[in-house]
Amino acid sequence: MPEFGKVVVFGVGLIGGSFALALKEAGAVEEIVGFGRTPVTLRVAQEIGVIDRAGINPAHEIGDADIVLVATPVAQMPDIFARIAPYLGPHTIVTDGGSTKGDVVAEARAAFAERIGQFVPAHPIAGAENSGPSAARWDLYQGKKVVVTPLPENGDEALDRVKRAWSVCGADIYELAPEAHDRVFAAVSHLPHLLSFALVHDLAVRDDAEVFFTFAASGFRDFTRIAASHPEMWRDICLANREALLVELDSYRAQLDELRLALAGNDGERLEEIFGIARQARREWAGGR
Amino acid sequence: MPEFGKVVVFGVGLIGGSFALALKEAGAVEEIVGFGRTPVTLRVAQEIGVIDRAGINPAHEIGDADIVLVATPVAQMPDIFARIAPYLGPHTIVTDGGSTKGDVVAEARAAFAERIGQFVPAHPIAGAENSGPSAARWDLYQGKKVVVTPLPENGDEALDRVKRAWSVCGADIYELAPEAHDRVFAAVSHLPHLLSFALVHDLAVRDDAEVFFTFAASGFRDFTRIAASHPEMWRDICLANREALLVELDSYRAQLDELRLALAGNDGERLEEIFGIARQARREWAGGR
Repeated sequence: MPEFGKVVVFGVGLIGGSFALALKEAGAVEEIVGFGRTPVTLRVAQEIGVIDRAGINPAHEIGDADIVLVATPVAQMPDIFARIAPYLGPHTIVTDGGSTKGDVVAEARAAFAERIGQFVPAHPIAGAENSGPSAARWDLYQGKKVVVTPLPENGDEALDRVKRAWSVCGADIYELAPEAHDRVFAAVSHLPHLLSFALVHDLAVRDDAEVFFTFAASGFRDFTRIAASHPEMWRDICLANREALLVELDSYRAQLDELRLALAGNDGERLEEIFGIARQARREWAGGR
Repeated sequence: MPEFGKVVVFGVGLIGGSFALALKEAGAVEEIVGFGRTPVTLRVAQEIGVIDRAGINPAHEIGDADIVLVATPVAQMPDIFARIAPYLGPHTIVTDGGSTKGDVVAEARAAFAERIGQFVPAHPIAGAENSGPSAARWDLYQGKKVVVTPLPENGDEALDRVKRAWSVCGADIYELAPEAHDRVFAAVSHLPHLLSFALVHDLAVRDDAEVFFTFAASGFRDFTRIAASHPEMWRDICLANREALLVELDSYRAQLDELRLALAGNDGERLEEIFGIARQARREWAGGR
């Protein structure tokens, strides 16, 4: 008998669809029920075996579900939380796949109120270029990290169930407090995106932009790869994690001020020191992966 | 009969050695004479066929050379220019492979004085991870860009000879004024390196640096790849191109200020606009390569 009975997935694209396929591949789930914004997406997801059937009414699907994964863009989560909150069964555990946690937790608290213990926030670290159900892959999470950000109200059983599900998908499970999660991802993901967008924009709006792009080479290519990311998605992530991102941005601006001072003062020693520390850290990081 | 007679190369590593090999591969040179800082390097270069022989005394090698390529780090160029200046023959053309041009031109003017017309500055855009003569490859410049930055004093024949040599190596030849060159490369190469070093350094010096690096993923990897570059080399490049780099750094800081304002003011529309312009420019750039 599979470890999980009914699993409901809101958003049957890359993140939710791959979660569904991974549980199925492991024989760990009895039934996957999918909800989505358009009937076409759900039909495709069913045809290619990502879900077993499309859900019609949350009132009929949530109460007896073991796990409800909300894997939509973060902006859509408040609405979904509100729609499912009245129907949580005593056994139902809800989790999410959002890349920011503080805002999602606040919305979940508003919707689930005294049942917030049944919501276990999480963030699977597995982006990819493509989206939609046809981008889903059973092995997307193999060896990837999933960060679970437990709430004080989460019981052991709720926490374990979410961790187990992601483990079954092949992921390595980490725990961070929601605030620590948002601080870390502001620094290592959201800020670099902002910085990369900023560089390309600064060049693109110049009258003689063409001459700059003509001579841009491999260093530019790597540095700006993430500037080809989705503008709306990154607008939402930046706003959702605004407070932590502002802190990281200000820390970075102070770092640039220091570099400017060293450069303007011809302080080669300080420049080399900063570059050297960065190089060593970058090499150790790459070597440890 | 080969197009070029004697070619003298100062610095027989990746840049100079590959130039030598490419000319030989094309059958375009009679003899390659190498100068270097250590006898060992020159012996290796000769053994693997990068040079035909090691030069001993510039007084005996420069006067009858068709081309003298100075392919050392920029910091060593003033000394080499001073050593060879007394021996330029009427037919000798000197060129260089430095990645900054304003400073090299100033040093060349000081050394060559009224014979500055015999110096044609250039910058081959072909870095690689490795260095030394054994890293040299005959095909390094195939399809790569070489920027020639002519001086008002350069005659057509001098300019053509340098362009021809790089064309024979398989490169595509571009022309920029030295100041334009330095401005462009400050923006698309030197600044991104500075920004990438800054991000990694800002994280590396934190007490809890470990937690940040633990969750850094592919976006961080691409953005920081150039932060593993050589600290001394980049110190020298930043200082050599200090004025142009300061201008670009200040332009970028103003861009960050604007992004900070939009973020702090919850101005999603402006964020999306900036991200969208960047994304489109990045995609067009990648598509055009």
